[in-house]
Amino acid sequence: MTFEEARAQFPVLERLAYLNAGTNGPLARSTADAMIAQTESDAVDGRSGMSYFLGMLELREHVRDALASVIAVEPPSLALTDSTTRGCAIVLAGLGLTDQDEVVTTNQEHFGLTGPLYATGARVVIVDADEEALVRAVTPRTRLIATSHVLWTTGRKLDLHRVREDAGVPILVDGAQSAGAIPPDVGALDFYTVSAQKWLCGPESTGALYVADPERLRVKSPSYMSQDSYEVSGAFVPKEGAKRFDSGWIPVAALRGLAAALAARPEWAYERAAEMAARCSELLSSRVEVVTPPGHSTLVSFRPSGDPAELVSELHARGVIVRDLPGRNLVRASCGWWTNDDDLQRLADA
Amino acid sequence: MTFEEARAQFPVLERLAYLNAGTNGPLARSTADAMIAQTESDAVDGRSGMSYFLGMLELREHVRDALASVIAVEPPSLALTDSTTRGCAIVLAGLGLTDQDEVVTTNQEHFGLTGPLYATGARVVIVDADEEALVRAVTPRTRLIATSHVLWTTGRKLDLHRVREDAGVPILVDGAQSAGAIPPDVGALDFYTVSAQKWLCGPESTGALYVADPERLRVKSPSYMSQDSYEVSGAFVPKEGAKRFDSGWIPVAALRGLAAALAARPEWAYERAAEMAARCSELLSSRVEVVTPPGHSTLVSFRPSGDPAELVSELHARGVIVRDLPGRNLVRASCGWWTNDDDLQRLADA
Repeated sequence: MTFEEARAQFPVLERLAYLNAGTNGPLARSTADAMIAQTESDAVDGRSGMSYFLGMLELREHVRDALASVIAVEPPSLALTDSTTRGCAIVLAGLGLTDQDEVVTTNQEHFGLTGPLYATGARVVIVDADEEALVRAVTPRTRLIATSHVLWTTGRKLDLHRVREDAGVPILVDGAQSAGAIPPDVGALDFYTVSAQKWLCGPESTGALYVADPERLRVKSPSYMSQDSYEVSGAFVPKEGAKRFDSGWIPVAALRGLAAALAARPEWAYERAAEMAARCSELLSSRVEVVTPPGHSTLVSFRPSGDPAELVSELHARGVIVRDLPGRNLVRASCGWWTNDDDLQRLADA
Repeated sequence: MTFEEARAQFPVLERLAYLNAGTNGPLARSTADAMIAQTESDAVDGRSGMSYFLGMLELREHVRDALASVIAVEPPSLALTDSTTRGCAIVLAGLGLTDQDEVVTTNQEHFGLTGPLYATGARVVIVDADEEALVRAVTPRTRLIATSHVLWTTGRKLDLHRVREDAGVPILVDGAQSAGAIPPDVGALDFYTVSAQKWLCGPESTGALYVADPERLRVKSPSYMSQDSYEVSGAFVPKEGAKRFDSGWIPVAALRGLAAALAARPEWAYERAAEMAARCSELLSSRVEVVTPPGHSTLVSFRPSGDPAELVSELHARGVIVRDLPGRNLVRASCGWWTNDDDLQRLADA
């Protein structure tokens, strides 16, 4: 697939410099068509029957395989979820954290991680988003380090393998801005979330959770998809591997859309996205203060001279889609494998 | 809206005697069209920007109001969820049940309730699906009664107001087979789940949770939608009322579809559905053993002479869609306000 062919899959790029995959990625024609065809079939043929149900189960496994391949893990380690927030909640509940425990996180995390973390009742220790600071904060009471691979604010990438090794405690990774964006690097990390609607250009409310050792995490919020068999008491035999953490029904149209989205992804996606982020950073740095360190991620965050929200709204009016980061005085551009020089030039000019 | 007009909204009914709303309801043309139009717009215009986000928030409130109206509660008591399973998990986590607690349930519940119940670690006391048995099982350690308003197996309706009053402990109601099916009767019940994809004919993975007293239930799995504001630690000011239990992002297409589905519902829905269930029961009782007591619900469960799964598959081949209930030796027909005599005659003849 050439770059032009790959890019032409996205209707939104015909008109807009769409640079906000960090929120929701662009939808490919084939993704939308797959969702539309399934919705049509749901209306005409109904959403019932053995072949409908078995087809849905097969699609789940197909999608699990494809997602596992993107982040380079084995499918049995991957649970299907509806969001990174859900992935975090599954891990935190499964660990059974109490107010006797400590968790370490940074001051640059999304509420999708910190909200569930706070709700556990554990003592949340907050440090600067820095490898050494994370390791230094660990005490004998620390049950978990919870942080992002790529910070949604500054776009900085943390060396979590170093953190994992030096700290020696389990690590939960918010992969919302890394999975599908930068080359996969799950390695010895314990838990890793995937938001499929962002960099993977999937339907809303799709995602995954990697669990290195499913047997050692409790299933605290089982769904019908979690069990192989169950008794009248609710006691159940969990599914093999991470499937037991599958967070519930996924609409068949969303499964079809996600399968199409993952099939639309070219092999050179990571290289191209990195290249475009570098180009974006270069173009902007002569005009504004870029805070994202070069080579870290596919995000390019910068401090505008004026009000970020106003700038975003002005850019929107000119067909350039970026977002501001409330309370951080930053504007963030997301560069994907579909981004071209013209998109970046439009951003720089505006 | 006449009956014929109302029924004509559902493409699947042109061909099939679709009697399985207890799993997934039929989709109206307008529901599918709303979902398709939004998916198309997502692909062409992108899924980003202030107006997209604000439009999504407005749609959430519109849907909350409409769902609240269907079950006759106030919108601030209603959280938007993706399933009854999620609703149950929210309540159980919020109550902070431990292995020191007891919960009482029946031997006729769905895994969507019993799975989460079992996973709390509390002692699960199982009784026959009977009002007196539920009340008798309550001890000083009982923190919760958790049961269905209408049993998904036999279609029996329990008098939960009597149970609530006599037992004097909070009650969590699995409303999967009652919300939208039988006239609303939430009254003094504490927690009530809604599956919108069943009797309300909404998109998959939509639903709600009624919480009588939101201030008294902890928010243990916050989503971005739960908070009005938050700190870097994840500490947050919860939204007013039950919105704090909103379980996460709902795809905009699903919100539009659900709004359309609720608008497609005629005023006489409850009366008609009850009438058709009575007719169905009457027609079947001369041929098989009907186990659903008359006048209880819109389900008609019966014990076939042969193998239930085989019968369901044979019926399917003849265009009659019902389901079997594994392990219970039952087949279940769901009668909705869209059902006509011909559907029932096809079932009876086959």
